[in-house]
Amino acid sequence: MAIERPLDALNAARNAFVVAELKNGKKIRGKLLAFDIHLNLAMDEAEELENNEVKRKLGKVLIRGDTIILIIPSE
Amino acid sequence: MAIERPLDALNAARNAFVVAELKNGKKIRGKLLAFDIHLNLAMDEAEELENNEVKRKLGKVLIRGDTIILIIPSE
Amino acid sequence: MAIERPLDALNAARNAFVVAELKNGKKIRGKLLAFDIHLNLAMDEAEELENNEVKRKLGKVLIRGDTIILIIPSE
Amino acid sequence: MAIERPLDALNAARNAFVVAELKNGKKIRGKLLAFDIHLNLAMDEAEELENNEVKRKLGKVLIRGDTIILIIPSE
Amino acid sequence: MAIERPLDALNAARNAFVVAELKNGKKIRGKLLAFDIHLNLAMDEAEELENNEVKRKLGKVLIRGDTIILIIPSE
Amino acid sequence: MAIERPLDALNAARNAFVVAELKNGKKIRGKLLAFDIHLNLAMDEAEELENNEVKRKLGKVLIRGDTIILIIPSE
Amino acid sequence: MAIERPLDALNAARNAFVVAELKNGKKIRGKLLAFDIHLNLAMDEAEELENNEVKRKLGKVLIRGDTIILIIPSE
Repeated sequence: MAIERPLDALNAARNAFVVAELKNGKKIRGKLLAFDIHLNLAMDEAEELENNEVKRKLGKVLIRGDTIILIIPSE
Repeated sequence: MAIERPLDALNAARNAFVVAELKNGKKIRGKLLAFDIHLNLAMDEAEELENNEVKRKLGKVLIRGDTIILIIPSE
Repeated sequence: MAIERPLDALNAARNAFVVAELKNGKKIRGKLLAFDIHLNLAMDEAEELENNEVKRKLGKVLIRGDTIILIIPSE
Repeated sequence: MAIERPLDALNAARNAFVVAELKNGKKIRGKLLAFDIHLNLAMDEAEELENNEVKRKLGKVLIRGDTIILIIPSE
Repeated sequence: MAIERPLDALNAARNAFVVAELKNGKKIRGKLLAFDIHLNLAMDEAEELENNEVKRKLGKVLIRGDTIILIIPSE
Repeated sequence: MAIERPLDALNAARNAFVVAELKNGKKIRGKLLAFDIHLNLAMDEAEELENNEVKRKLGKVLIRGDTIILIIPSE
Repeated sequence: MAIERPLDALNAARNAFVVAELKNGKKIRGKLLAFDIHLNLAMDEAEELENNEVKRKLGKVLIRGDTIILIIPSE
């Protein structure tokens, strides 16, 4: 699917799992419920990853967009 | 409940307890009284957590949104 | 008192003492004279705290909002 | 081709590979799908580089613009 | 005098001496000539303080507001 | 030539070589193709300098304005 | 001369020498050609100072405003 704007890349990821890598080095993986133009993200079933293993379970979480480096939608 | 915008995730958390993780590494847990689009948060019965234990009691507190990494509504 | 917006939490604190915790680790306690949407604060009878003791007296002070982590209105 | 605005330099790079160097020292190479005025980038077939070797494969990725130092369109 | 907005606290300080504490730890004391909503300050007879002693004389100076933590009008 | 606004200093530098010094300590030298009010720069024939020697060749590059400290148009 | 706004302090400094102290600790001295509300500065005959001695000559230079702590117009 062609996309016009970079945030369109998240539209296909709604209700699917994504990984957000944060400026403090943490990675949060969760089901993407919603996002906005600031890249604020609401996730469900979220967990913090460390070396690709689950460090702790967060459940529902709201991540502030300005703390994000990149988002990887898992395919 | 489906949500359209990420901050909607906080609406259900009004008057319930949430944990805010801050850029300085601190965690504040409290009853969410109000929030705005900057993620400024007003809490009551707030306390600072360290290793999941209460480090100090804060009571009522206003947290500046730009200091927040993520918010976990407890279910 | 129910509050609609997080900064309403400061309205009741006008002319009362509040503690502002700053991003550089300092804490300033003073009588809140005025605030604005940026969380710029004007205080009177302000003092800097260290380990909950008075480190120095500041008197009247204007604190820039973007340097603030959180504000604790004392009840 | 003459360009009027700096972001025009990315227009010719759509669907071609670019390297984004980030403020945390990481380099991400991928096929540019879309970008916006904040320099938010959507890439496909992205991979993280270290010393010009592939450190890990990311696949589809959305990079937040404010984390970018520079972008090198490969010719 | 009651004040409505925090920057009103600087109005009474025009042409009087104030101390600006900066994010880099420096303190600048000078006669306040002008300020704006960003807290940009123009001072005259300014000097940099270290341990409450004059480290160097600056004379006229313009301080960028976003570098300021707090301003102490001397009474 | 008198200039009214600081960015006018870049107008005469179009298609000439400039050096951009970045907040991470790096220096990029290249032919200025375009710039905007954020100081985003598009360069061609760019190279990274270290101790005034060429460390690596970048070719075409887009530099994000907020990562720039200063720009030196070479005369 | 009375000034209304802090940036007026730079108006009298046009075509005169000023020193800009930057957030990275560097000092740039040069003849002020132009400035804007962001404190972007265009200088000519600029040089970088270290311990009040000339470390290197820059000539014409554009300094990004958000990298500036303070500006000292020399009288």
